[in-house]
Amino acid sequence: MKRFDFTKMTEAEQKAVLERSAINLTKALETAKEISMIVRSRGMEAVMAYARKFDKYNREDIRVSENEIEEAFSLLTEKQKKAIRNAAENIRRFHEPQFPKPYSVETVEGVLCERVFTPIENVGVYIPGGTATLPSTALMLGIPAKIAGCSRVVLVTPVREKVPPAVLYAANLCGITEIYAVGGAQAIAMLAYGIKEVPKVDKIFGPGNQYVTAAKMMASTDPKGCAFDMPAGPSEIMILADKEANPAFVAADFLSQAEHGPDSQSVLISESESFLDATMLEIEKQLESLDRKEYLRLSLEHSMFIRTESIDSAFSTINFYAPEHLVMHVKNPRQYISKIKNAGSVFLGEFTPESAGDYASGSNHALPTSGFARSFSGVSVESFMKATTLQEITKSGLANLSETICTLAEIEQLSAHKRAVTIRFEQ
Amino acid sequence: MKRFDFTKMTEAEQKAVLERSAINLTKALETAKEISMIVRSRGMEAVMAYARKFDKYNREDIRVSENEIEEAFSLLTEKQKKAIRNAAENIRRFHEPQFPKPYSVETVEGVLCERVFTPIENVGVYIPGGTATLPSTALMLGIPAKIAGCSRVVLVTPVREKVPPAVLYAANLCGITEIYAVGGAQAIAMLAYGIKEVPKVDKIFGPGNQYVTAAKMMASTDPKGCAFDMPAGPSEIMILADKEANPAFVAADFLSQAEHGPDSQSVLISESESFLDATMLEIEKQLESLDRKEYLRLSLEHSMFIRTESIDSAFSTINFYAPEHLVMHVKNPRQYISKIKNAGSVFLGEFTPESAGDYASGSNHALPTSGFARSFSGVSVESFMKATTLQEITKSGLANLSETICTLAEIEQLSAHKRAVTIRFEQ
Repeated sequence: MKRFDFTKMTEAEQKAVLERSAINLTKALETAKEISMIVRSRGMEAVMAYARKFDKYNREDIRVSENEIEEAFSLLTEKQKKAIRNAAENIRRFHEPQFPKPYSVETVEGVLCERVFTPIENVGVYIPGGTATLPSTALMLGIPAKIAGCSRVVLVTPVREKVPPAVLYAANLCGITEIYAVGGAQAIAMLAYGIKEVPKVDKIFGPGNQYVTAAKMMASTDPKGCAFDMPAGPSEIMILADKEANPAFVAADFLSQAEHGPDSQSVLISESESFLDATMLEIEKQLESLDRKEYLRLSLEHSMFIRTESIDSAFSTINFYAPEHLVMHVKNPRQYISKIKNAGSVFLGEFTPESAGDYASGSNHALPTSGFARSFSGVSVESFMKATTLQEITKSGLANLSETICTLAEIEQLSAHKRAVTIRFEQ
Repeated sequence: MKRFDFTKMTEAEQKAVLERSAINLTKALETAKEISMIVRSRGMEAVMAYARKFDKYNREDIRVSENEIEEAFSLLTEKQKKAIRNAAENIRRFHEPQFPKPYSVETVEGVLCERVFTPIENVGVYIPGGTATLPSTALMLGIPAKIAGCSRVVLVTPVREKVPPAVLYAANLCGITEIYAVGGAQAIAMLAYGIKEVPKVDKIFGPGNQYVTAAKMMASTDPKGCAFDMPAGPSEIMILADKEANPAFVAADFLSQAEHGPDSQSVLISESESFLDATMLEIEKQLESLDRKEYLRLSLEHSMFIRTESIDSAFSTINFYAPEHLVMHVKNPRQYISKIKNAGSVFLGEFTPESAGDYASGSNHALPTSGFARSFSGVSVESFMKATTLQEITKSGLANLSETICTLAEIEQLSAHKRAVTIRFEQ
């Protein structure tokens, strides 16, 4: 792990240290392009063939049957089901107030403008497989989709044979019944363009590997394809701790992020050298008792400790980095909220571990990574909806606007735009 | 112009007719990639060189000076300035209520979750040049940015020498002072990555040609680059007219869309053959008196008339096409609002021409094209902001969540996530 003393570094040096490595998608884009073309021309046959090739696939049918779903429920303990239900309930409570409200304004007499919201009709949610079973991601995407009122929600997830029971249980709580046991770029191509057995969707949500990301990006710029939620990068945490913070708690939060995958990044900022020393000892101690040590060691290699002048001066670093997760192990954390300009989700105080937000506090864990918190929000009910503006103008309302429209149309040399107004007063 | 009778066509045939041609960005992406690389390595020198190469550039300095701005104002008539001010005022009135409201929910006793909104700090607005001077686009992007509270708004626009006075006046009304007289992929690379003289921005708004679009797309997937508003395609209108509609008004709206550019598309749907005949005659008649005939003839080539069974049955066509603009020349248009699922902006009744929304009603004219209204909203105040979630948990609140978090962490095999909770109850 690296350690930097920002009090002795120039701003340029500090920024260089904080910069994420660019994800090179060139090769993934080529592969995804080929997969997409072949899925579009050969349909289900190609989807199955790629699943066999990449996922050692052992199914005859990608669609998860009702029987399979019911069978899965019997494999879960009552305690497990209850945990998924509790998490779902908290997520629902936090997300329901996000449902956007229509409004109208009479901007000029006789000119009524309105804004209304409609659900995106067909959405796909991608639940990654690989290193972990992720029922929590099914809840984080499925619950806002349900609140938004999307008429069709399709879940895909890469498997060898069986979709994990917990994922099926979570999907069921969200009312998702159309589930395909398939992942990768082939699943994205199937959803984005549609095949005979699976009609296309309008937007795809959820993180995935570089081939999934590449396939989502490609489809998002094609009018025949579909939109996607946000660019996906490795997960990350930034922890701000003052000298009175608890090194054991901070070390645990630092490590909980690092276990997500080998490319995860944890960054700890403190004004106290001795606190950083104490936390380093705690990390080494706790590391021994954890599983997934292989990931932990790899992600710790690109994780770092930063010494800063003061807690106040840390916010320029935080806002430049724009962390997905920001944990504030400081006294009276609320006094600093107005200083936070760029962050996906913020955890205030020593009893608010990031894992609470990952699972159960109610906030969404699908958040912008790689600095995209400078311009993106995490997934919300609005992510599953879109706004339409309406306007209704009376004849006298149009007369009120006429000179403004006609003069602007003249400036822009769009004579048919002007004509569309003047013709209405000729008859 | 083409004419189709949907009452005699299968659904598949109808969909084929309505499909937009995919924009092939392969070549543009290559060019944009090269330009971006060279701008990043050589900075201003490269920006100037490309401007000279592509725009017959005749400036020494891309930055528009205060003197230049003041001088420009004197070139506008009082009537022109008033029109721009009136449009700005209506846009402000409609957009102000979009400012998002923070909220908080105690999801479980001791678990407080909140959502707050912050402006995107640095934004770029791209005002296309080429075939038209577009002060309206400066207002449509500048006013929401101002309401959102973005701390830095940078305007770029391609020119040979002088930025059109009306664009400078509109920018000034929005409080935009950092203006660069440069466009194309070189301007996007400059904004997305920053050069010595021009720091980078976090998100770029505004339509542009295929090189601009390609450059925006590329930067949007690079953690060192920046986000963009939405995929841009040719502008389009869909008009729904019943047999009592006024053919002259409908023809004028049809033509006002067609003049935007050679690739614009206008689509008229009616249940009445005789109404379509009458409108065709009107189009031919009005065409003669309009400027920009070269664009009009080209865009009319891929524009179309569609005969449908009834007004009610037209909505499946409308929702499949997902028009940027939908104009409703029908009796009591409000009765159909709940049937509209996918549309950027809707114009209700015969005195609501699209050009009112382009300029002055108050609604935004930066809207999703190419069917992206299935998943995208038009530009709004929220487009210039992002949400951050906050959570604050007490010790007893964490105890309330503990079993849920720990059970889910077990299911997902993330032992450090569980440890981050249990360690807080050990001391």
